[in-house]
Amino acid sequence: MIKVGIIGATGYAGAELVRLLLQREDVEIVWYGSRSYVGQDFASVYRNVVHLTDEPCKDDDMATLAEIADVIFTATPQGFCASQVTEEILSKTKIIDLSADFRIKDVNVYEKWYKISHATPQFIPEAVYGLPEINRDKIKNARLIANPGCYPTCSFLSVYPMVKEGLVDPNTLIIDAKSGTSGAGRSAKVDSLYCEVNESMKPYGVATHRHTPEIEEQLSYAAGKPVTISFTPHLVPMNRGILATAYATLTRPVTTEEVKAVYDKYYGNEYFVRVLKPGEVPQTRWVEGSNFADVAFKIDERTNRIVMMGAIDNMVKGAAGQAMQNMNLLFGLPENTGLKQIPVFP
Amino acid sequence: MIKVGIIGATGYAGAELVRLLLQREDVEIVWYGSRSYVGQDFASVYRNVVHLTDEPCKDDDMATLAEIADVIFTATPQGFCASQVTEEILSKTKIIDLSADFRIKDVNVYEKWYKISHATPQFIPEAVYGLPEINRDKIKNARLIANPGCYPTCSFLSVYPMVKEGLVDPNTLIIDAKSGTSGAGRSAKVDSLYCEVNESMKPYGVATHRHTPEIEEQLSYAAGKPVTISFTPHLVPMNRGILATAYATLTRPVTTEEVKAVYDKYYGNEYFVRVLKPGEVPQTRWVEGSNFADVAFKIDERTNRIVMMGAIDNMVKGAAGQAMQNMNLLFGLPENTGLKQIPVFP
Amino acid sequence: MIKVGIIGATGYAGAELVRLLLQREDVEIVWYGSRSYVGQDFASVYRNVVHLTDEPCKDDDMATLAEIADVIFTATPQGFCASQVTEEILSKTKIIDLSADFRIKDVNVYEKWYKISHATPQFIPEAVYGLPEINRDKIKNARLIANPGCYPTCSFLSVYPMVKEGLVDPNTLIIDAKSGTSGAGRSAKVDSLYCEVNESMKPYGVATHRHTPEIEEQLSYAAGKPVTISFTPHLVPMNRGILATAYATLTRPVTTEEVKAVYDKYYGNEYFVRVLKPGEVPQTRWVEGSNFADVAFKIDERTNRIVMMGAIDNMVKGAAGQAMQNMNLLFGLPENTGLKQIPVFP
Amino acid sequence: MIKVGIIGATGYAGAELVRLLLQREDVEIVWYGSRSYVGQDFASVYRNVVHLTDEPCKDDDMATLAEIADVIFTATPQGFCASQVTEEILSKTKIIDLSADFRIKDVNVYEKWYKISHATPQFIPEAVYGLPEINRDKIKNARLIANPGCYPTCSFLSVYPMVKEGLVDPNTLIIDAKSGTSGAGRSAKVDSLYCEVNESMKPYGVATHRHTPEIEEQLSYAAGKPVTISFTPHLVPMNRGILATAYATLTRPVTTEEVKAVYDKYYGNEYFVRVLKPGEVPQTRWVEGSNFADVAFKIDERTNRIVMMGAIDNMVKGAAGQAMQNMNLLFGLPENTGLKQIPVFP
Repeated sequence: MIKVGIIGATGYAGAELVRLLLQREDVEIVWYGSRSYVGQDFASVYRNVVHLTDEPCKDDDMATLAEIADVIFTATPQGFCASQVTEEILSKTKIIDLSADFRIKDVNVYEKWYKISHATPQFIPEAVYGLPEINRDKIKNARLIANPGCYPTCSFLSVYPMVKEGLVDPNTLIIDAKSGTSGAGRSAKVDSLYCEVNESMKPYGVATHRHTPEIEEQLSYAAGKPVTISFTPHLVPMNRGILATAYATLTRPVTTEEVKAVYDKYYGNEYFVRVLKPGEVPQTRWVEGSNFADVAFKIDERTNRIVMMGAIDNMVKGAAGQAMQNMNLLFGLPENTGLKQIPVFP
Repeated sequence: MIKVGIIGATGYAGAELVRLLLQREDVEIVWYGSRSYVGQDFASVYRNVVHLTDEPCKDDDMATLAEIADVIFTATPQGFCASQVTEEILSKTKIIDLSADFRIKDVNVYEKWYKISHATPQFIPEAVYGLPEINRDKIKNARLIANPGCYPTCSFLSVYPMVKEGLVDPNTLIIDAKSGTSGAGRSAKVDSLYCEVNESMKPYGVATHRHTPEIEEQLSYAAGKPVTISFTPHLVPMNRGILATAYATLTRPVTTEEVKAVYDKYYGNEYFVRVLKPGEVPQTRWVEGSNFADVAFKIDERTNRIVMMGAIDNMVKGAAGQAMQNMNLLFGLPENTGLKQIPVFP
Repeated sequence: MIKVGIIGATGYAGAELVRLLLQREDVEIVWYGSRSYVGQDFASVYRNVVHLTDEPCKDDDMATLAEIADVIFTATPQGFCASQVTEEILSKTKIIDLSADFRIKDVNVYEKWYKISHATPQFIPEAVYGLPEINRDKIKNARLIANPGCYPTCSFLSVYPMVKEGLVDPNTLIIDAKSGTSGAGRSAKVDSLYCEVNESMKPYGVATHRHTPEIEEQLSYAAGKPVTISFTPHLVPMNRGILATAYATLTRPVTTEEVKAVYDKYYGNEYFVRVLKPGEVPQTRWVEGSNFADVAFKIDERTNRIVMMGAIDNMVKGAAGQAMQNMNLLFGLPENTGLKQIPVFP
Repeated sequence: MIKVGIIGATGYAGAELVRLLLQREDVEIVWYGSRSYVGQDFASVYRNVVHLTDEPCKDDDMATLAEIADVIFTATPQGFCASQVTEEILSKTKIIDLSADFRIKDVNVYEKWYKISHATPQFIPEAVYGLPEINRDKIKNARLIANPGCYPTCSFLSVYPMVKEGLVDPNTLIIDAKSGTSGAGRSAKVDSLYCEVNESMKPYGVATHRHTPEIEEQLSYAAGKPVTISFTPHLVPMNRGILATAYATLTRPVTTEEVKAVYDKYYGNEYFVRVLKPGEVPQTRWVEGSNFADVAFKIDERTNRIVMMGAIDNMVKGAAGQAMQNMNLLFGLPENTGLKQIPVFP
């Protein structure tokens, strides 16, 4: 039985962790952390689990939690995990951090884009970027996993094979991403009200979104050189789902068959990444509620560009599902344990 | 391994059966029946199961299917199952019919409300109404199960304890129900277009909806006398979910504690029916994607009425999930096998 | 030129007043009142009017406003208008109050349901309930108009002819109403977040909603005797629109033609109330953005009941549009001046 | 009184024309053309105009219509208008064609992208591309106006000033556009069903969408040289609204003030194009139901690119509203006659 603690359990990502973990027979949630709801039953806050758990929410206390949990998930605001983690904690338990605190290796880049100072930069070097499709082996032995952002997961998986193979010029990359509203979290803001979001669409964080350097860093590793991209997220009136549409200039003429083979080379053995048939496009509805990432591409001879597209559920592959995928790796389990949910449609 | 055939697999209810059955290790789907998509891969029609099955759709052929399947689900238009079922088929396999063909014992009532003639009324007597919460034992030994309608399931479960205990006058019952749009099915009609449904709400089938006699029949058994009710369904701009709001006059003064105890008496041991705490109301979001039915009530002393409320996912407890619950009973399995999905939120 | 002041201009109802009033050539908005946004341009808060007004928001100050405005709209929380109105103000200007402060004649009923004490009960007697279809003449000469609630407007117009004619027993009335989310207002609450409302439906205020006594009072005048009803509102995932479904027992057998004639008797000359043809049902999409109220009915011989249905746009006929209709009456203008907007579809 | 005929009145764009035209006192609709609903009352098909018109739908007959109408709107499938127009008709009336038949000057380009042959290429040279903001003077004297596509209107207005001034390299333009579902029309297709569109998002027509050459042609005129772009439309779960996000490489360093001045140079006097303040982004909700186009930009120094953004209501500025704007020009009326509707929010 894996003993799990969740800090930030009453945010949307935390609650999604609860949904996924509670369905497992080999996991016990020993701590529902929630600063806002201390003492209240978790099931009174998220009534989807009425009758399935009667645990109350507890305050954040990573040190105590480290004594009883085999792994701690932090689904918390930026800066929290960095401010709490210590060598002692890491010596006793594993941490999977769903915030951005340990995703970026260059602390200056982190501090510039996130506009906070990093409390424990000494742990950055050992943190492993938790994208199993590229870092599987490192993840297995990590103490501290930086669970990737939702946009970076979708964006990176969509373009990675082409960048890695040098078939596109990475500095021509333009990623136009669209997300459902759960990504904005559960805090009570006018901008997140139903009537403000419904029947509307908008870009936000144009040229300044904090997921940009995260995508760039991972692409730089793939390209073997620094990469600078344009990245624009948009808010879409739906609960879940991210769609990324990425454009890049080809470095040489390619055929559809050739590109399909490249995608299959990287993802053919991946359970969660589904390369669609040429001519098909990803749609968020076909991945909703699941850990799948659907990717596809279209070559545009007229412009010598390729359009690369991907779709994920931002709450699952973009957050809680990927975190559990990382947990599976940490504990030597099959990567898709507890993650075989088929997308819910309609 | 239970061998399952689905006729009508490419409708929404059929596809939901596929979603639920494919996630099981003890079930094999041996037949994806679809008149419209014969020869096409099922996963090309419902791309949520891309990479999870490569089976093609086959034509409807219940006789052949009876040879190879332990159980056949018919998720087909009214009249189809009745027109196909034979004694020979029933001697070889089990049938769980998601249509209304065998739900109503009085064939005249069926023919009047459905405006079709029943091809095989001889099988009506043996058919068991597949609501496990009231017919569990009969279901276990049935050959032919009439899977309840979505509105009847939600309506009946909401009011059953009060009617059974004689605490309301059943002939004062007014059930105002609201459904997501998946209940309208996947056929291409102008009325079901996104732009026609979105940002709107309407009643339909006022005083004439075909689920009315089904609800009345089951309530009559509970009341021990004929029951006539008002039932009005409404179309709501959401994919899934039914909410029923039922009103009835109390036969004597009751307290909240007393009524809560009545609901607990009938549902306290039911896995899928969750009686909410007094003061709480059912919301479809807390059952979405799951087989749960959440029920609650509110006594209105001013009018001497009680308001009884229930919420289900019309595709799960209202169709495919309940059908699988019935299948579990047929095969001697724990009733919630494969049905422990926690509702997806948000 | 009618000089208009709006207190509470940055709530949804206030902003809808701005939308309707700004389109008029014979009206000038002299005061955009908003406690939350004092000093900010109104068009920076509601960007639909960018370039159409450059007025800033001003603090609430009814006394100053009374000096310069011919009419004041208060789109404010319960209690505000009552706390501000004075004889002096009423001697200088007209007030159209969109809150409930002056809707209910019995101050004890008001205080019981609204759980606040009324600051100026002395003005209740002279306040006119601003439903033009029944109080047109009184409205013309009023100083203080109590603009009806959204649910009461829709509910009352749907059932009024049948109650007035004595064709239904008013104490059997059950009104099941459904509203879009704009009715919840623009305050930042978790319950109003997009992800909480979208893809879900719920009842609220069951047997306790504050619009109940307002409906009952108006129905009592129509019936000529006290009326007690069941009223349940529901929250629906759409921005605008209220649908009311009302059930009542007939006092004698009636035909469809007869009932149609009754509705036509009361509404045949009304511009804003559209009696649909028998067989048609109201849908909120056909009134969205307009001041129309569509009403229809269906006789149910089986239960000796009639189902009466109505649809309005809660922001227009349910709030700002009706307020402007009242303003037109106050100033001797054709009632539909500035209110001929055709519903926006889709 | 301007006599207007509409062919294709029961499609979404046609019905939007009816909404806008029926609100005018100086216009009479003399012909509600609809092949599908001949003989039925228009108001029974689009019930938003119940009680506002009792005209029946008539068959398509442009020759007869030319005798009685001052202007004919064709809101019809590609190829229809081209197949009907004759010199005789053009000598008697004006035509505003909402289809693509006369938008593209090079008939080969038209036939290649639309995959139909053009019936009357002889009228292409005289047709005027009906984007008033660039072709106002030509429109006034035209007989045949090609009303622009929805995506081209939004895309072009967003980038035009920068292209015209040579501040971006037009061949680096990537336009990622997102549209509500009304753009897909009212035909009954599975892909347009509520449950297929709701809670999902997808790209379509990737690298092959037929609006691409229309955008390219207009940009070529602005740039003074051939332009080839990447254009990807996406389907968004909302009724109305298009958002375009366009990316291009700057030809030289620019400041925000400088670019703002450029946009103001072109749009400062335009009633319908609203240049937002730097830092603001367009949102479809702020233009819904109106003829406004909101545009904005953001310079990205890191990549030497500029992001240009625009939002319109696809049914109004993207179709019927712009058509009426063109009609106003044709008849010497102020361009915004009947088009001052303020966007409906929420």
